[in-house]
Amino acid sequence: MNRAISLDIPGTRPLSIHTAYLDKVPSALIMQGNTQVLCCASYEDKVPPFLKELKDKRHGWLKAEYSMLPTAGGMQRQQRERNRYNSRNLEIERFIGRALRTVINLKTLGTRTITIDCDVIQADGGTRCASVIGGIIAMSQLFHHLVFEQKMADFPPMKLVSAISVGIRNDQILLDMNYEEDLNADADINIVSDENGKLIEATAFIEGKALDPQTHSEAITMAIDTNLRIISGIKPLMEG
Amino acid sequence: MNRAISLDIPGTRPLSIHTAYLDKVPSALIMQGNTQVLCCASYEDKVPPFLKELKDKRHGWLKAEYSMLPTAGGMQRQQRERNRYNSRNLEIERFIGRALRTVINLKTLGTRTITIDCDVIQADGGTRCASVIGGIIAMSQLFHHLVFEQKMADFPPMKLVSAISVGIRNDQILLDMNYEEDLNADADINIVSDENGKLIEATAFIEGKALDPQTHSEAITMAIDTNLRIISGIKPLMEG
Amino acid sequence: MNRAISLDIPGTRPLSIHTAYLDKVPSALIMQGNTQVLCCASYEDKVPPFLKELKDKRHGWLKAEYSMLPTAGGMQRQQRERNRYNSRNLEIERFIGRALRTVINLKTLGTRTITIDCDVIQADGGTRCASVIGGIIAMSQLFHHLVFEQKMADFPPMKLVSAISVGIRNDQILLDMNYEEDLNADADINIVSDENGKLIEATAFIEGKALDPQTHSEAITMAIDTNLRIISGIKPLMEG
Amino acid sequence: MNRAISLDIPGTRPLSIHTAYLDKVPSALIMQGNTQVLCCASYEDKVPPFLKELKDKRHGWLKAEYSMLPTAGGMQRQQRERNRYNSRNLEIERFIGRALRTVINLKTLGTRTITIDCDVIQADGGTRCASVIGGIIAMSQLFHHLVFEQKMADFPPMKLVSAISVGIRNDQILLDMNYEEDLNADADINIVSDENGKLIEATAFIEGKALDPQTHSEAITMAIDTNLRIISGIKPLMEG
Amino acid sequence: MNRAISLDIPGTRPLSIHTAYLDKVPSALIMQGNTQVLCCASYEDKVPPFLKELKDKRHGWLKAEYSMLPTAGGMQRQQRERNRYNSRNLEIERFIGRALRTVINLKTLGTRTITIDCDVIQADGGTRCASVIGGIIAMSQLFHHLVFEQKMADFPPMKLVSAISVGIRNDQILLDMNYEEDLNADADINIVSDENGKLIEATAFIEGKALDPQTHSEAITMAIDTNLRIISGIKPLMEG
Amino acid sequence: MNRAISLDIPGTRPLSIHTAYLDKVPSALIMQGNTQVLCCASYEDKVPPFLKELKDKRHGWLKAEYSMLPTAGGMQRQQRERNRYNSRNLEIERFIGRALRTVINLKTLGTRTITIDCDVIQADGGTRCASVIGGIIAMSQLFHHLVFEQKMADFPPMKLVSAISVGIRNDQILLDMNYEEDLNADADINIVSDENGKLIEATAFIEGKALDPQTHSEAITMAIDTNLRIISGIKPLMEG
Repeated sequence: MNRAISLDIPGTRPLSIHTAYLDKVPSALIMQGNTQVLCCASYEDKVPPFLKELKDKRHGWLKAEYSMLPTAGGMQRQQRERNRYNSRNLEIERFIGRALRTVINLKTLGTRTITIDCDVIQADGGTRCASVIGGIIAMSQLFHHLVFEQKMADFPPMKLVSAISVGIRNDQILLDMNYEEDLNADADINIVSDENGKLIEATAFIEGKALDPQTHSEAITMAIDTNLRIISGIKPLMEG
Repeated sequence: MNRAISLDIPGTRPLSIHTAYLDKVPSALIMQGNTQVLCCASYEDKVPPFLKELKDKRHGWLKAEYSMLPTAGGMQRQQRERNRYNSRNLEIERFIGRALRTVINLKTLGTRTITIDCDVIQADGGTRCASVIGGIIAMSQLFHHLVFEQKMADFPPMKLVSAISVGIRNDQILLDMNYEEDLNADADINIVSDENGKLIEATAFIEGKALDPQTHSEAITMAIDTNLRIISGIKPLMEG
Repeated sequence: MNRAISLDIPGTRPLSIHTAYLDKVPSALIMQGNTQVLCCASYEDKVPPFLKELKDKRHGWLKAEYSMLPTAGGMQRQQRERNRYNSRNLEIERFIGRALRTVINLKTLGTRTITIDCDVIQADGGTRCASVIGGIIAMSQLFHHLVFEQKMADFPPMKLVSAISVGIRNDQILLDMNYEEDLNADADINIVSDENGKLIEATAFIEGKALDPQTHSEAITMAIDTNLRIISGIKPLMEG
Repeated sequence: MNRAISLDIPGTRPLSIHTAYLDKVPSALIMQGNTQVLCCASYEDKVPPFLKELKDKRHGWLKAEYSMLPTAGGMQRQQRERNRYNSRNLEIERFIGRALRTVINLKTLGTRTITIDCDVIQADGGTRCASVIGGIIAMSQLFHHLVFEQKMADFPPMKLVSAISVGIRNDQILLDMNYEEDLNADADINIVSDENGKLIEATAFIEGKALDPQTHSEAITMAIDTNLRIISGIKPLMEG
Repeated sequence: MNRAISLDIPGTRPLSIHTAYLDKVPSALIMQGNTQVLCCASYEDKVPPFLKELKDKRHGWLKAEYSMLPTAGGMQRQQRERNRYNSRNLEIERFIGRALRTVINLKTLGTRTITIDCDVIQADGGTRCASVIGGIIAMSQLFHHLVFEQKMADFPPMKLVSAISVGIRNDQILLDMNYEEDLNADADINIVSDENGKLIEATAFIEGKALDPQTHSEAITMAIDTNLRIISGIKPLMEG
Repeated sequence: MNRAISLDIPGTRPLSIHTAYLDKVPSALIMQGNTQVLCCASYEDKVPPFLKELKDKRHGWLKAEYSMLPTAGGMQRQQRERNRYNSRNLEIERFIGRALRTVINLKTLGTRTITIDCDVIQADGGTRCASVIGGIIAMSQLFHHLVFEQKMADFPPMKLVSAISVGIRNDQILLDMNYEEDLNADADINIVSDENGKLIEATAFIEGKALDPQTHSEAITMAIDTNLRIISGIKPLMEG
């Protein structure tokens, strides 16, 4: 079940994916350029309080948690979230959670909460998109595990998605920026899209020059196209 | 200086803006349908630690804080953030802060941090966009105050922006959804754009059916158009 | 049900009360001079853990929460309580909660907790007393709502109370001080009393010159008298 | 310097005071009936941020902290405040701090913060008043220490105060209630007064039947009288 | 039941133990040189979540909490743990808890959690070992109380243990160091051992010169011998 | 500089060490059986407040932080420390920090704090000992980096140490237990010792049967011997 692939998608950094990276838990290590994110999937047999009124309907939930090792960004060490929180992390885990919740029908999970932990080992741009890719793979492994353990009758219907960041600099579109490029970009757009080329999530943050809607539209088209290539690359990993 | 206007923008709920709403602090109360957000601008003469190496260059900072009164959403009271945090609030205040930082040149602020507090008195959809509108008005008042107090030489160059939410339901585009509509929408898109019709921020969160990129593009066009109308409506409020 | 009154009580600042200020929740906006406090009443069908042994007896609870918007006091912005607490706020909400709990028989509430949220929009002295006045009005609205929704058989017996602050400066008694006067006073006394002229709560904090017990006694008499006038003014607002 | 006295004040429980109870820090152990509070005084050579603008004027500060050992109230153990807070404790430490700040002229402290730690070893009613008594004794010891160490030129002028609780039950006035009596009282009044019979702080919390102002006035008179007796009892302990 | 003993163990500071020190809760005050620790035992009829799957088996739990009064170490006041934590305290309470859990068979406790609170009144070295001694005495009192109240059928089988610290300085072994000696030692070893001379816990922390294993071994032998003497001294206190 | 070695130490699980595992920060990945710990070393040019009085003496500090990924132990996910803390982690990071501080002379660091972050990717016993081994290697890399960057004149004198756990079960000594073995052991002993066979830290926690001091002594001898073998294995990795 342990498998590693390398994808060479035009315009993006080399993407390596190591599935079943750990022995004890469904997991995927995503390496995209110097970015490394470890995604692990686990579950518990209860749902968060805000869902409990739906309990009879066997409605599940999925959430992501995202964090960086203190030195993921280099020698400028970041404090741990211990006894504190980091609002960028919380924004990102909401991004990942929303994307992955659209992939499945929460009702097929039963009264169960799935958690996708995305821990950034090394950060060099694109960590939230890498987390979506790793998250869907780890989640798929978890479903195979649950079916194998007879805790789920069947592998639940699941849509394939991918995510990629696109930057705009001087009206130029840059796919899959690293940290250095991101710092100098005018806009940072993260796009999650599915195997049918439809949008799942798209967030454009402009940091410099305001963005022409036409350029925005082209960037999204390019990202959707790239996501389709990644999806076709990771498809074989989704099998048990 | 205390002024109230009502705008009637096609396809959106009635928008009333009350500037200089409070006596002691630059402020604007935004009412959009049943949504009410009070935005206040204040400043202190220091910058956050992560900017301190730039201090000699007299580089300023702007941040937003967003919170809801516990009963803003109705009788289902939400806990206060006292001794805790709410990740949705943190996501939204990052959205508002990013938008407002693009409006000005931070270097013109001097070694100063501006805080835009957005407190939701009543929530009925669209609070983050209302906060951007209220925020830019309160900020403008603060600049007039600083010039008047001779703490700033001139009113700093400032771009006008507006924000509006757009929903997609069954491929239909719905401008400025209320809470009820938002609950039932397939996609919730928030668009900040400027007086030249350029994008400042665009976040599309899909909650149901994946979104056709073409529909997404049309929604953004419609939002930009609406924002242009709002900008021309609020322009008179920006004067001292 | 939405109603606004203005009371002109001798020796105090103009007092305006706007009931049913919000659409979604029982509420009252109190304006006393430049002080503005928004009080909202909500409930949940459970009681705090320390009361749970009394559950069978259908014993309810009432608590207040008090907070200030960060800029309520002006441009010297206060940090939000997010991930922290403010001991002055906690002292004040205990003051409000105690006062309002004496007004009703907690056993008539059933297994229910009422929360009175008092959010200070603008602070210019007297906010804790304004919160008691707003709190009793919002609570009364909530009872009307519960009766209307058939969650309560009858409007529970409820005593009318009011609260007012009195300051002492150079042995002079000053009713209803604003912030400036409070800063310079020797003593700050907050008195809650009922429709029969009896005391419900009285807290005298001396900040300067020690207080003659005789003067203290006179201040309380004057406050009780003022509270009787306020009570007769707000009585009409207590009806459905 | 280590000294213990027992006072027999009419109408109150036996009061024993052990000064210089610890070796390493100015301290007083107060035992009143079964209540035991240990008060310790310490200082640091800086003032809190909100006072720093006054630094040039050598203006000091004094604060109290109050806490209970987890089992001070008996086998119903209370959680420690570790990573949390307890609003009753915060209210009480504000009470103690205010009382002790009126006793001295903060300007005589220099740029220094005094902390009075009041830790309740066993709680049986009257802990906040016992803390005021223990606090003033520990503070006086600290001043002797500072003079001895030549960190203060002279023992600063200091007013003697005392505190006592009074309860009202069925219109009867009860001095110095224990926990059992407090539970059943209609009103709980805490009075701090000085060596001239003037009020320093008076807080009346009504828990049951509303209180006749005349009874309140009598209770205060009785408390002031009791405080005068305690003050004359502790006077010898204030010497070095 | 209230009893005080003084033990004079060769090579250690005078050890006084005051059992049933408080009226409301099983307790022991340990004084060892200038160190004073108050240990109290309480219980609740539930077990922590991680044990709940064992509930049917009537499996209990025991934990310790350890804290210092802010001025226990002298005038260099330490901040309270309020809204924070102190990792040294947490390490020490794990030490105490582990030691006391080995003394009893947790299954004899029923579905019950015992908490041993160890509060350091004055700290002068050896507080964690004093806490173990005080803890076992307070625990024994609690068992007598539970038997007396017929909540336990019989006094549970319980092993006697003691704890003592040993320091190494220039290859010299120093029993029961005070704070001053501890600061200058090369190694600080804390040994818990039982009435049979067997080890229960042994932690050697080297702060200076690395420790010869032979010296370590001798230190442990000496500590075990000392613990045997303490155990025989405290044995009479364990009776009801 | 990137180098990987595998050590085959008698009686222990296979130990693989990958130095310079990350690109951006001195780091070592330790794999011991199924245990995986990533250790990273970073620094900042300041010292903690409690050391600041020593600043003139250019005295440095070193601390460790230890945490586990939420699923490091398997599908029974642990909550992140976000807004909370975990006392086991704090105990362990104190263990690691103490061990590494003895290895160097803190005065050679200058006014600098070194942080060793130990993040457990997968936990299967022995994580605290693996962290000491990884920590010393990452620290050595950091020193090479600082010398190369001319921030340190010379590589500071540094002692080699290693750490290993030993368990006792039915009087049998078990080197380097995995999680399963640890659960069933009577004693869990962690020993840090140096290149001269001297002890640096030794903690014996007994969970079951009390431990014969003779067996304890033998376990320590065996651990010291094992540590000497590991030290000779990792020596080549300490070079630049």
